[in-house]
Amino acid sequence: MNPFQNLFFRLKEGNLPLGRIEAFSDGIFAVAATLLVMDLKDISLPAHPTPLELGRALVAALPQFLSWMISFVIVAKFWLNHHHLLHLAGHADYGMVWINSIFLMFQSLVPFPTALMGQYPNNPLAVGLFGVTMAVNTILFIGLYAYILKRTARPEMLALEDPLVLRKSWVGPVSYLTGAGLAWVHPALAFGIYFATPLFFITPLHRKHMARPGR
Amino acid sequence: MNPFQNLFFRLKEGNLPLGRIEAFSDGIFAVAATLLVMDLKDISLPAHPTPLELGRALVAALPQFLSWMISFVIVAKFWLNHHHLLHLAGHADYGMVWINSIFLMFQSLVPFPTALMGQYPNNPLAVGLFGVTMAVNTILFIGLYAYILKRTARPEMLALEDPLVLRKSWVGPVSYLTGAGLAWVHPALAFGIYFATPLFFITPLHRKHMARPGR
Amino acid sequence: MNPFQNLFFRLKEGNLPLGRIEAFSDGIFAVAATLLVMDLKDISLPAHPTPLELGRALVAALPQFLSWMISFVIVAKFWLNHHHLLHLAGHADYGMVWINSIFLMFQSLVPFPTALMGQYPNNPLAVGLFGVTMAVNTILFIGLYAYILKRTARPEMLALEDPLVLRKSWVGPVSYLTGAGLAWVHPALAFGIYFATPLFFITPLHRKHMARPGR
Amino acid sequence: MNPFQNLFFRLKEGNLPLGRIEAFSDGIFAVAATLLVMDLKDISLPAHPTPLELGRALVAALPQFLSWMISFVIVAKFWLNHHHLLHLAGHADYGMVWINSIFLMFQSLVPFPTALMGQYPNNPLAVGLFGVTMAVNTILFIGLYAYILKRTARPEMLALEDPLVLRKSWVGPVSYLTGAGLAWVHPALAFGIYFATPLFFITPLHRKHMARPGR
Repeated sequence: MNPFQNLFFRLKEGNLPLGRIEAFSDGIFAVAATLLVMDLKDISLPAHPTPLELGRALVAALPQFLSWMISFVIVAKFWLNHHHLLHLAGHADYGMVWINSIFLMFQSLVPFPTALMGQYPNNPLAVGLFGVTMAVNTILFIGLYAYILKRTARPEMLALEDPLVLRKSWVGPVSYLTGAGLAWVHPALAFGIYFATPLFFITPLHRKHMARPGR
Repeated sequence: MNPFQNLFFRLKEGNLPLGRIEAFSDGIFAVAATLLVMDLKDISLPAHPTPLELGRALVAALPQFLSWMISFVIVAKFWLNHHHLLHLAGHADYGMVWINSIFLMFQSLVPFPTALMGQYPNNPLAVGLFGVTMAVNTILFIGLYAYILKRTARPEMLALEDPLVLRKSWVGPVSYLTGAGLAWVHPALAFGIYFATPLFFITPLHRKHMARPGR
Repeated sequence: MNPFQNLFFRLKEGNLPLGRIEAFSDGIFAVAATLLVMDLKDISLPAHPTPLELGRALVAALPQFLSWMISFVIVAKFWLNHHHLLHLAGHADYGMVWINSIFLMFQSLVPFPTALMGQYPNNPLAVGLFGVTMAVNTILFIGLYAYILKRTARPEMLALEDPLVLRKSWVGPVSYLTGAGLAWVHPALAFGIYFATPLFFITPLHRKHMARPGR
Repeated sequence: MNPFQNLFFRLKEGNLPLGRIEAFSDGIFAVAATLLVMDLKDISLPAHPTPLELGRALVAALPQFLSWMISFVIVAKFWLNHHHLLHLAGHADYGMVWINSIFLMFQSLVPFPTALMGQYPNNPLAVGLFGVTMAVNTILFIGLYAYILKRTARPEMLALEDPLVLRKSWVGPVSYLTGAGLAWVHPALAFGIYFATPLFFITPLHRKHMARPGR
């Protein structure tokens, strides 16, 4: 038997309960969100500062606090939307588990570009990589969404879905990449766009009545 | 459709089960509480100390141990009271999820001002920022409390609530900010107040019989 | 009303479900156990080592690996025994929650004395402090045990308890403190005792048939 | 009574529910997977880089990103297979808890060899130790598997098991150790094998129909 022969076949198998997938995902979201504070350890502080010197050093570290805050809000946004995605699914097959794991891998990466952006707030590459990472995260999220809609969604939940939800979700990657591009014009533009993008996803998009706000 | 048009409208939607909100919150509380020990890594120790030298270095690091201890107790206090808050709510809407997330953001920040206070125990700004952070945390907690009381509380739980609970909760911010102010007189006063404040919240305030201790 | 007046009265109140106490505790156990690996980051390695140089540096770091291993086993031991303790309790009051939180505080401290013992394996104070920390942890665990037996245990579970269980539990602190004392004679004696002590607690002591191994 | 007398006897006792074992395991998997990103902090970056300099520094850190990615996928693979293992078991005895804890100990070690391999990608010992660690993890996993099959599996689940599953699982250690050996020929060979090995375990092996892929 060639063990790799039926690799993709195997991914369509499996009927896993969602409990431990939620537990593993929530664990990674929570740890990633909390590890962001470790980035603030990189703030360089004088050895025996007066209050004034300490205050100045902290004010100079404003980009690091901003990066931390933007990142936390984005991770919380992904957590909230992920929550709804798993609620949409009735079970999981191995393909869904692996798309979810690759998504979580890039979610756990978030503290790295956050630190980079905080430390080099005037370097367009550092600021841009933050946007690229978030775009990759959103694209993986959309992939997970598409997979669930196609293969593991509960029929009664599918009926409530906005048929345009996947198309609307591309607002995320486009917005993050626009921010990444504008970082080369002025970093403040990128910070602004990174801050505004999660507002669009403040609630999950996949509910039909989202398309009819008057309802 | 203007995607931001109905932003605040959307926040009032949603009927989320509390399970994953608890899991995410407990994860952040647990990681934040445990990461506090990483602050003790900043203790500067000699390279090849004799027992006496090591002992002296550890005694000199007493403010760091005190900061760690005070912080852990405060995080545990927030966890306990948060536990009760979610128990009071019957479900969550998106507004509640986001107030909770912003509260958790500042909860996950706690290791930073703790490290600052531990490293610069004689710097009134460092010691004061600890109190300010805790006041912000408590105000966000009160905001979450008020939101739940108004929108998502279970009726049978509401009946057990002390009507003055929100007013009493302001003891927290006032006390932490008093400590932050007194740090400019003498840091030891601030440490004392930070240590005493959680005692007031050692049990949740929101039970009616709290107002009638003789019952 | 004097807010501190009824402090101890309030601790006897409360009828909390055990679910979130388990979640918070398991989170702290898991994070503390996993953070231990961060102590191995302190191993000093050459910049561009040959395999031989790297091998020598890792062999020289043997005490750090030993400390990590002993600590992980001890945390796992506490987790297993804590598991049974909560199973013994039917509910929690605020006193139990706070004894548990203080116990978890010292559990989350474990990475610090572990790093100290790993870095200064020939310093009797460093090696001794590890034993003292573990003794404090065990004493707090015994306190939690006694509290549950007295106030919150389920009657049907109480009947299965070994009446001598609290007395037997003192083997732990005595053994850890003996190790801490012997660190001043030779550190290897302390390492040996720290390694052997958890074997006594490899299964919870609180089951009556533990006293009758022939059963 | 000799407390160690009945050590192995005691390990066969116990009838523990699986809930908290899952919670502790998922916590360690999630924290270990997320801590891997801390290894990327070791990337040495210039102080005030131009975008070009920063880009070059990040490209030079490619082995660290590769190590992080391979490690995350391997931890996710262990998590998925562990999930199924606990699903196979109906309950746990103390022996199973301890084999599981020792397995989790080496799982929590993963960030260390990952950092080593990322920092010294041309050092065969550093690259080889990664494979050895993964082989040890897989052997412990096989031990846990064998123990569950023999002692705690649910009969209805046992019937679905491939009788050759344990033998097939040895593909893992053999493959990781082959990679570790080939690291001495060329590190790229080891990276390739470490990357390919998890593909074999992309779905659990223990389902009978795995042996009959045409089904």
